[in-house]
Amino acid sequence: MEQRLSIVALGVVDLAASRRFYEQGLGWTMSSAGNESIVFMDMGGVVLGLYGRDALAEDAKLPPGEPGGFGGFTLAHNARSREEVDEILSEAAAAGAKILKPAEDVFWGGYSGYFADPDGHPWEVAWNPFFPLRENGTLALPA
Amino acid sequence: MEQRLSIVALGVVDLAASRRFYEQGLGWTMSSAGNESIVFMDMGGVVLGLYGRDALAEDAKLPPGEPGGFGGFTLAHNARSREEVDEILSEAAAAGAKILKPAEDVFWGGYSGYFADPDGHPWEVAWNPFFPLRENGTLALPA
Repeated sequence: MEQRLSIVALGVVDLAASRRFYEQGLGWTMSSAGNESIVFMDMGGVVLGLYGRDALAEDAKLPPGEPGGFGGFTLAHNARSREEVDEILSEAAAAGAKILKPAEDVFWGGYSGYFADPDGHPWEVAWNPFFPLRENGTLALPA
Repeated sequence: MEQRLSIVALGVVDLAASRRFYEQGLGWTMSSAGNESIVFMDMGGVVLGLYGRDALAEDAKLPPGEPGGFGGFTLAHNARSREEVDEILSEAAAAGAKILKPAEDVFWGGYSGYFADPDGHPWEVAWNPFFPLRENGTLALPA
């Protein structure tokens, strides 16, 4: 199995509301590959999908469980500066996101906060001086 | 907020066991940026992290909840052929993964199955004739 992640699919309760949050709220572009039951976004090297929560659980043959709690994962968007972290959290809040944690200096030497999307999926917005970003925005992880 | 996903962090109950699964079981390379409490893998455009489940929930200021159920998300690895899907699922099973769904023809025209990692995080392994892979393995999503 090659060391690759192709798609992260998020289960959502209301696809129209989630799409509105990402498309109108954050200003992201949806791929033409989507339809009324699934949405895909090119995240620069990986694809983010939005799909009905029950349908996604059923696809993986898992019981759906309760939405809204911690799902055992977080998504992170690494910003280019401390100031950009604050700007992005403000933008997310203006788009209707719940701020889970305002940005603060963190023990590992960076600056980070969290917002939740309409289904409670947590996005960390972080500035990490040890993980520089390449020109194209991807994270330059040490080998 | 730029349309980018930098890191997917998975909350794990036993970091050593999870690391063993991905490193020895699937044969993936860990970044030197990790330490005894966190592990990072370069997934070709996005980074996959493994971190203690309770610590990850605490970082996002969320109650940890019960591990093992559906977390409202799936990860997908797109393969280059139908045959490769079968090979990868066999490899994952040999590495100790639970097969959630053996590969089958699916309604959207592809071929797909699922395995669960040691914490139950679901990985879809799929061949999708509508989403070709680039030479470097990233998914060529229609604009």
